[in-house]
Amino acid sequence: MGAIETYVDEKCEAFLEELFELLRIPSVSADPDRAGDIGAAGQWVSDKLAAIGMKSEVVVTKGHPIVYGESPKVEGAPTVLVYGHYDVQPVDPLELWISPPFEPEIREGRIFARGATDDKGQMLTHVFSAQAWLQSEGRLPVNLKYLIEGEEEVGSAALSDFVAENTEKLACDCIVVSDSAQFGPGQPAITYGLRGIACYEIVVQGPNRDLHSGSFGGSITNPAVALSRILNGLVGEGGQVQVPGFYDDVVPLTELERRQMAELPFDEKQYFRQAGVSDSWGEAGYTALERRWARPTFDINGLTSGYQGTGAKTIIPGRASAKISFRLVPNQSPETIDKAFRDLVEKLAMPGVKVEVRGMHGAPGLLVPLDSPYVVAASKALEHAFGKAPVMTREGGSIPVVATLHRQLKADALLLGWGQDDDNAHSPNERFLVEDFYRGIRASARLWEEIARI
Amino acid sequence: MGAIETYVDEKCEAFLEELFELLRIPSVSADPDRAGDIGAAGQWVSDKLAAIGMKSEVVVTKGHPIVYGESPKVEGAPTVLVYGHYDVQPVDPLELWISPPFEPEIREGRIFARGATDDKGQMLTHVFSAQAWLQSEGRLPVNLKYLIEGEEEVGSAALSDFVAENTEKLACDCIVVSDSAQFGPGQPAITYGLRGIACYEIVVQGPNRDLHSGSFGGSITNPAVALSRILNGLVGEGGQVQVPGFYDDVVPLTELERRQMAELPFDEKQYFRQAGVSDSWGEAGYTALERRWARPTFDINGLTSGYQGTGAKTIIPGRASAKISFRLVPNQSPETIDKAFRDLVEKLAMPGVKVEVRGMHGAPGLLVPLDSPYVVAASKALEHAFGKAPVMTREGGSIPVVATLHRQLKADALLLGWGQDDDNAHSPNERFLVEDFYRGIRASARLWEEIARI
Repeated sequence: MGAIETYVDEKCEAFLEELFELLRIPSVSADPDRAGDIGAAGQWVSDKLAAIGMKSEVVVTKGHPIVYGESPKVEGAPTVLVYGHYDVQPVDPLELWISPPFEPEIREGRIFARGATDDKGQMLTHVFSAQAWLQSEGRLPVNLKYLIEGEEEVGSAALSDFVAENTEKLACDCIVVSDSAQFGPGQPAITYGLRGIACYEIVVQGPNRDLHSGSFGGSITNPAVALSRILNGLVGEGGQVQVPGFYDDVVPLTELERRQMAELPFDEKQYFRQAGVSDSWGEAGYTALERRWARPTFDINGLTSGYQGTGAKTIIPGRASAKISFRLVPNQSPETIDKAFRDLVEKLAMPGVKVEVRGMHGAPGLLVPLDSPYVVAASKALEHAFGKAPVMTREGGSIPVVATLHRQLKADALLLGWGQDDDNAHSPNERFLVEDFYRGIRASARLWEEIARI
Repeated sequence: MGAIETYVDEKCEAFLEELFELLRIPSVSADPDRAGDIGAAGQWVSDKLAAIGMKSEVVVTKGHPIVYGESPKVEGAPTVLVYGHYDVQPVDPLELWISPPFEPEIREGRIFARGATDDKGQMLTHVFSAQAWLQSEGRLPVNLKYLIEGEEEVGSAALSDFVAENTEKLACDCIVVSDSAQFGPGQPAITYGLRGIACYEIVVQGPNRDLHSGSFGGSITNPAVALSRILNGLVGEGGQVQVPGFYDDVVPLTELERRQMAELPFDEKQYFRQAGVSDSWGEAGYTALERRWARPTFDINGLTSGYQGTGAKTIIPGRASAKISFRLVPNQSPETIDKAFRDLVEKLAMPGVKVEVRGMHGAPGLLVPLDSPYVVAASKALEHAFGKAPVMTREGGSIPVVATLHRQLKADALLLGWGQDDDNAHSPNERFLVEDFYRGIRASARLWEEIARI
């Protein structure tokens, strides 16, 4: 490993410069106007894989392209599938960014750019680690496959089909994903649980145009009032989701899990201060950590209706809409919940308006067996690179495709987050510690060795 | 009157061209960027009054300017105060306008422009009628005072002060306002009741930035969820406003009023079809006409929160806000309701967010005595100009200052609407029938004569 680590040390600045190149491509998957940039980002990743000696291809799909790469065959060695994504979240509100989102710059030891941590920076650590092996040792100790998609932020629709149609090509012993956070600065973690997700838009159509609220108010249904009624009816005062049967399939936290979580050095006050809120909130009987990692939730992500300019405009809006999302936990079925949710919305709908529920994307949650040999191998690699044994955590976010990969390929998934919780993954001023980027590369290089030893 | 009517007939096209001039000025009072246009529109009105022989001035206020004009003194004749406004509603959504809102054009006998009916077109009828008297008869039979403001659409704040400080200057026997609708095409009406209004913005501040709903969902309060809870709590399923004591001061409709309203040829089906909705809605026990004219209401005018772009963005928004308005009926006090409303919002607020209630504008409602001699005079003038006796109606909209004028000047108010209900007063494609514009001028000219005879 000595030569490899020396190589990584020497190439630090070159790795950073290459990451900057990819960060400069505004590959926002939700924005149809960015299709060209999405293509460019995928091509960049494929070119990079080819440049370090991989077989690599850009696969055209019905959605955004998928990059697939394979390392030179190592007979008898285990096969690892690295999953990541080159697409990024939208940037608005743009005016809150201190530096432009697609002009990466380093301030106070952090790389600032959209995609820095989610997921371009984290994903590339597994590419640079392979480069280090190949350039310094002339070989890799394992077989690596890369599956890097461009639709993670919008539901991975094309990838699901691709995986279903290519289970032999993608066959592997374990899956490695770095798209989450450490437990805290310098405290690595292995994430053994992910929440699932179900995203919707609810559109309430009232009159065929905005109407004068004096002439019509009180005698026709206001679509924004109707929307408020639906939204309020979806969630209880304490945060309990009101969709019938929503909690039926939730696997309760074990006593061991609750104890492990309680023992983690998690400072609730600091957590709330970081979010800029004064109070905790959520389901009674659970800690903040349990709520965010292991309990399903309902959130409103956006509201749009009527007049949003300066001052007053006394209208009944023609329509009102909300973007909403449920976070699901392992064993909850997005399909079952979809039906119950739609039925409830219909029940909550007021007369005189048309209510439409538009499904956007959904994915189940995931739990990884804690006794997997790959978890043990990852534990050793992380301890080596961070100088500290990882803690076992769960993650409140969703990586929709990981559950699919796990199911289709029948392989364990290693969720190794190199980022931090306050990296602003979906917010303005997204960032990634330079040190985390380097530690990620070193941990990844060591991981290939530990897995080879299994 | 023969010479006057001939004059009006001959000048029809010139009147229309002058109205177009004023409509071309985008005097949107809610938009701070339009202050220059507001000033230009006020100056236009003042210049017009001066051109036909009035004393006229543009009064600078803390808000938008007020135009005040006086006709040459007629000893022993009654004095009529004409109230109107030269400001207009915002135009958005702009993309729904068939022709640009400030480029008036005539299609199918209608003038299309923002302000065509509300209130530039209606207000000018009383200026052109005076011009007809002065140019053809060399005199007016009454003393006319003009009070034309630029803040009607945003609450008439400056005007209230102006009226309070100038009650002698504005002293009059009756007030004439044309800022409402006929009962239907060719069926004139005298409006004896106006609803009041109270406008607010509710702002819910959550985290200090948009947060990843995976990392934070379920453990901090979502401000859009908190807003939905407040909005839903303000109004019952049947449209009953939930503010404690809201209905305490409401004067019930008399049996006579209910009978008069029931006898009006009002086609509910046509009314709903016109609004593009399938169903009636509102307080049980009232007809649609009673609800819109004589019952107080709650409406959401606009909603803003989080991500409103294409696709999904899984965030907890940093803030959520709603513009709302209550329509009040005569005898309800905006001040009493203000306090009870704020108390209720506070009670409905969830923990973990800051809720701010921003009052925008408020005004009480108005009822005019049906046995006033001025009502009788107006009735005759309308029957002469329209060939049909007016019906007595109420109006669901608010003209905040009319109640103030009535109280301060102790004069009856004549609400003579020349427009139509489907003139799109606060919507895209606002319009005014050319024929209604001309009938308004003729009715106004006759009104001065009928009032002189009292």
